[in-house]
Amino acid sequence: MPTTDYQQVLNDITQEVAPLLSQGKVADYIPALAEVDPEQFSIAIYTTSGETFCAGDCTQQFTIQSVSKVMTLTLALQRYGDELWHRVGKEPSGTAFNSLTQLEFEKGIPRNPFINAGAIVTCDALYSRLSAPMHTMLETFRALSGNRCIAIDKKVANSEYEFRHRNAAMGHLMKSFGNFENEVDDVLWAYFNFCAIELNCIELAKAYNFLANNGIDNTSGKRVLPSRQTKQLNSLLFTSGLYDAAGDFGYRVGMPGKSGVSGTVLAVLPNKFTVAVWSPGLNSFGNSVAGIAALELLSKKLDISIF
Amino acid sequence: MPTTDYQQVLNDITQEVAPLLSQGKVADYIPALAEVDPEQFSIAIYTTSGETFCAGDCTQQFTIQSVSKVMTLTLALQRYGDELWHRVGKEPSGTAFNSLTQLEFEKGIPRNPFINAGAIVTCDALYSRLSAPMHTMLETFRALSGNRCIAIDKKVANSEYEFRHRNAAMGHLMKSFGNFENEVDDVLWAYFNFCAIELNCIELAKAYNFLANNGIDNTSGKRVLPSRQTKQLNSLLFTSGLYDAAGDFGYRVGMPGKSGVSGTVLAVLPNKFTVAVWSPGLNSFGNSVAGIAALELLSKKLDISIF
Amino acid sequence: MPTTDYQQVLNDITQEVAPLLSQGKVADYIPALAEVDPEQFSIAIYTTSGETFCAGDCTQQFTIQSVSKVMTLTLALQRYGDELWHRVGKEPSGTAFNSLTQLEFEKGIPRNPFINAGAIVTCDALYSRLSAPMHTMLETFRALSGNRCIAIDKKVANSEYEFRHRNAAMGHLMKSFGNFENEVDDVLWAYFNFCAIELNCIELAKAYNFLANNGIDNTSGKRVLPSRQTKQLNSLLFTSGLYDAAGDFGYRVGMPGKSGVSGTVLAVLPNKFTVAVWSPGLNSFGNSVAGIAALELLSKKLDISIF
Amino acid sequence: MPTTDYQQVLNDITQEVAPLLSQGKVADYIPALAEVDPEQFSIAIYTTSGETFCAGDCTQQFTIQSVSKVMTLTLALQRYGDELWHRVGKEPSGTAFNSLTQLEFEKGIPRNPFINAGAIVTCDALYSRLSAPMHTMLETFRALSGNRCIAIDKKVANSEYEFRHRNAAMGHLMKSFGNFENEVDDVLWAYFNFCAIELNCIELAKAYNFLANNGIDNTSGKRVLPSRQTKQLNSLLFTSGLYDAAGDFGYRVGMPGKSGVSGTVLAVLPNKFTVAVWSPGLNSFGNSVAGIAALELLSKKLDISIF
Repeated sequence: MPTTDYQQVLNDITQEVAPLLSQGKVADYIPALAEVDPEQFSIAIYTTSGETFCAGDCTQQFTIQSVSKVMTLTLALQRYGDELWHRVGKEPSGTAFNSLTQLEFEKGIPRNPFINAGAIVTCDALYSRLSAPMHTMLETFRALSGNRCIAIDKKVANSEYEFRHRNAAMGHLMKSFGNFENEVDDVLWAYFNFCAIELNCIELAKAYNFLANNGIDNTSGKRVLPSRQTKQLNSLLFTSGLYDAAGDFGYRVGMPGKSGVSGTVLAVLPNKFTVAVWSPGLNSFGNSVAGIAALELLSKKLDISIF
Repeated sequence: MPTTDYQQVLNDITQEVAPLLSQGKVADYIPALAEVDPEQFSIAIYTTSGETFCAGDCTQQFTIQSVSKVMTLTLALQRYGDELWHRVGKEPSGTAFNSLTQLEFEKGIPRNPFINAGAIVTCDALYSRLSAPMHTMLETFRALSGNRCIAIDKKVANSEYEFRHRNAAMGHLMKSFGNFENEVDDVLWAYFNFCAIELNCIELAKAYNFLANNGIDNTSGKRVLPSRQTKQLNSLLFTSGLYDAAGDFGYRVGMPGKSGVSGTVLAVLPNKFTVAVWSPGLNSFGNSVAGIAALELLSKKLDISIF
Repeated sequence: MPTTDYQQVLNDITQEVAPLLSQGKVADYIPALAEVDPEQFSIAIYTTSGETFCAGDCTQQFTIQSVSKVMTLTLALQRYGDELWHRVGKEPSGTAFNSLTQLEFEKGIPRNPFINAGAIVTCDALYSRLSAPMHTMLETFRALSGNRCIAIDKKVANSEYEFRHRNAAMGHLMKSFGNFENEVDDVLWAYFNFCAIELNCIELAKAYNFLANNGIDNTSGKRVLPSRQTKQLNSLLFTSGLYDAAGDFGYRVGMPGKSGVSGTVLAVLPNKFTVAVWSPGLNSFGNSVAGIAALELLSKKLDISIF
Repeated sequence: MPTTDYQQVLNDITQEVAPLLSQGKVADYIPALAEVDPEQFSIAIYTTSGETFCAGDCTQQFTIQSVSKVMTLTLALQRYGDELWHRVGKEPSGTAFNSLTQLEFEKGIPRNPFINAGAIVTCDALYSRLSAPMHTMLETFRALSGNRCIAIDKKVANSEYEFRHRNAAMGHLMKSFGNFENEVDDVLWAYFNFCAIELNCIELAKAYNFLANNGIDNTSGKRVLPSRQTKQLNSLLFTSGLYDAAGDFGYRVGMPGKSGVSGTVLAVLPNKFTVAVWSPGLNSFGNSVAGIAALELLSKKLDISIF
């Protein structure tokens, strides 16, 4: 398919999802997120040949929330390799993303690195190896996205930290099982800062372009992850990236993906492109209503699927 | 890669997994399975261009057990389409394959069609639309595998029926929630007969070749499922085909797959081939030790992954 | 307190609970129970000295439902003694009375003999030792209540059997764990017949008078259970007799008790009396609204508590 | 029974349980408890008429651990009355004493005040109403036991605080559900100090004598709790005082009781006496092996039971 079509497809999708913008509900568990206007939308494709296509409010930044977990995992895999899997599993969770039940049953080993407990323990592992975790994370996003001005929304980070108690419960539970190295509150502070990094959808698609490019960042030509590890990371995203809706997302969209509570979703078409979409209105699973719909439309219109 | 290489790769794999043949443990929950000699192995590739490659005990038949669930789902999707998803979910289960806990929590709607409860309710749906379910299933496998002599191992079917109580518990629980149409024991009898169909690994790879071929059986040229539905079925296999080890299987093998307690595993490389492997010794997850290892070797040697 | 006061107290209670009769909801999981007029009430005390006091619709019979479980346990203890506790536990369940989750977690050993699974397995044990279980149970109630005409409401028994699937699931699950000796459906048929025995509240209080009388039936002077075993049975009733409301019942009423879904509740004041109350309207825990209120009033008015 | 017999019975019990002293295992989750010599034993009865009987190492003090939860509840009931039950339930837990699963399922409302989560939330309630919680608790024990020198073992309190993470997880989980008023760590510090109060078994039996005496401390003649509330507290102890072994304890001992991980058990025979026993070796439920055995012997020898 000629790449010129991508722009037309994104324009069409933006039109088609417009009626959905009023249907979702913004996350309200912290005040800073509850204030966002839900009726916003943007979508961007970044291809492995370095082309960008976008539609909607493309310059509007948003906190990336759980999409940061993919970078946390990437940085941890760089430092630990397969050793990391002693502390976190690779299996879908089968329960809501914040369940303590499963964590207790599994004796403090979270099912996968994309549920909160798994991301927090990955963050704990990373924290042990970095002298300035927030600086490193910011620099990583700045380098990969090409925007040196990327920053953390401290208001959001503070608000999430204030309402951290469910995540704190997970941290302490893991610590009680011996699967936590640092102070729980210190790691949570880093974790919420990672979640509060602000990007627009073009920057987000670009930052993760190595996932579609066998591990190589195509702007700098630098390898972020080995090829096989990149495929493995995509596999984990496919089976676990959308919490308790991973099966349905795979069924409808046919690409690995990761969602965030700010209403963003990242998806990867290996060897072709990464796509980032953003719309703050969420469905009951905590995923963007218009974002999921947009990716399903993209999958149908371009007849894409990894299968 | 030239297809002649496939044969060499399968030969190499057969050599390399030989030391593993004594490590697994045959399923012992029914006497008929416990009697099988664990130290057997076979592997077969059937390509979308109709070529066959095999190594090991390739003419040795085995009961396909849970790999039959994929055909049950295929036949049910042909008759119900998306309506089927009112009765069974599309999400990974996150617990052992025979858990009643989750089924109770989800009010009688199994998480996916590949855990036992989900396969049984799919079987119930199919049972309601077929006058002779066992005949139809046999004929389907005969047509797709090209072997008119395919039969059911009645000793195995009877033995599984005798020890049906955990599955019967699931059937009655679903019936108590209103998600079961026929008599529980009647559906279980059909279900165990489906599981007791005997194929060798070449026949198994061939029977499911439509999964790699966008829904078309390449021997007859007939469409088994629409293209998009085929991709969706592969997606479900990727997220849920290996019970509680789906994440790890995807991570290591990078293909959708389905395992059976007789020690068989089927995997699909879309647009390329289906591969069936068989070795009766199982790991603690109920998956073939040598079978999983063989597929991981295949993935590495051919550098294949859907990602 | 002079026993003449008992009559006045029961009269007062009957007046005081009258406004509650319209508040509960009759059990509707089987048609035969759903037809009952909820606005009925009766209460009877039978003392260890053989006196009877009653108020309300005292001659109105009702199926005793789960209150039969106490007699099933009594007959099983007579035949097995402490050996019975290998098949069923003595601990409160902490979840809804019909949960399969706990039964699965505990590997087919029900938590106590008063939740459904526990009563069914006790029934299975009894079934193995009796040539005519329903006859024996009826004769036991006839002898202890003094009414030779006591019978089983076959319409109710049949209706419960037809809608047996949740209980059948429990039976099959226990059988899968090796904790079931007979055919599941045979035992369930006996179980539902026990539940469908019809008594009025005077007969019910009298039939269980041995629980307040150190194990001796004071009409015949015959010992039903040894003294210590009787106290132990009362202890089990105190900790587990009211399903998931045992703690609250003990807190408010201060006596061991057992409730049934027909709206009956039996309570025991050791060395003093048994009391049976009946009113079909149930609360959300499946216990009689007016029945529980009447027993709490009785406890307060007579200032009774075992503590 | 003449009270002189009590002494003989306690002497006999001390002899009879001697072979059990080497069978249990001391709590080892904190170093301070793991150091205790397991082969110690003491038992004391304090009657409602003010007499004391004891045998074994009666002057040996030990930290009372979870037996402190009964006093925490008493002080909270004095201040909140039935209002307290909005924050904690009255039902047996049916799972291990430190389970987070149930707490999550019940949305942050612990099942009862004797499991850890329930005691911690009761402690939080008390903390909100006291300016010096540790001082108040110490003064209460000093006044009721008659020993002005009672103190807190700070080494134990510090050690428990250091290994607080599972309890911290519960506190944060309750806070995430809005059922926690103060800082989690502050409340835990008070909680562990309460647990680390040191008494000998005579002082322990005496301090809780009001439970057997309708709420009145018979040394001072002062009312600690209203009579009905005292009976209710005993009912809660009966249904929930021994975690997941409450049913068995009631069955064997026939008295309300409370155990602590230091190997102490308190039991109450209403209108007669309180009895405290101590022996550090624990069974798999975390209850004292010799302590439970001693109370069962006491129950048999004196033929006592509340039923």
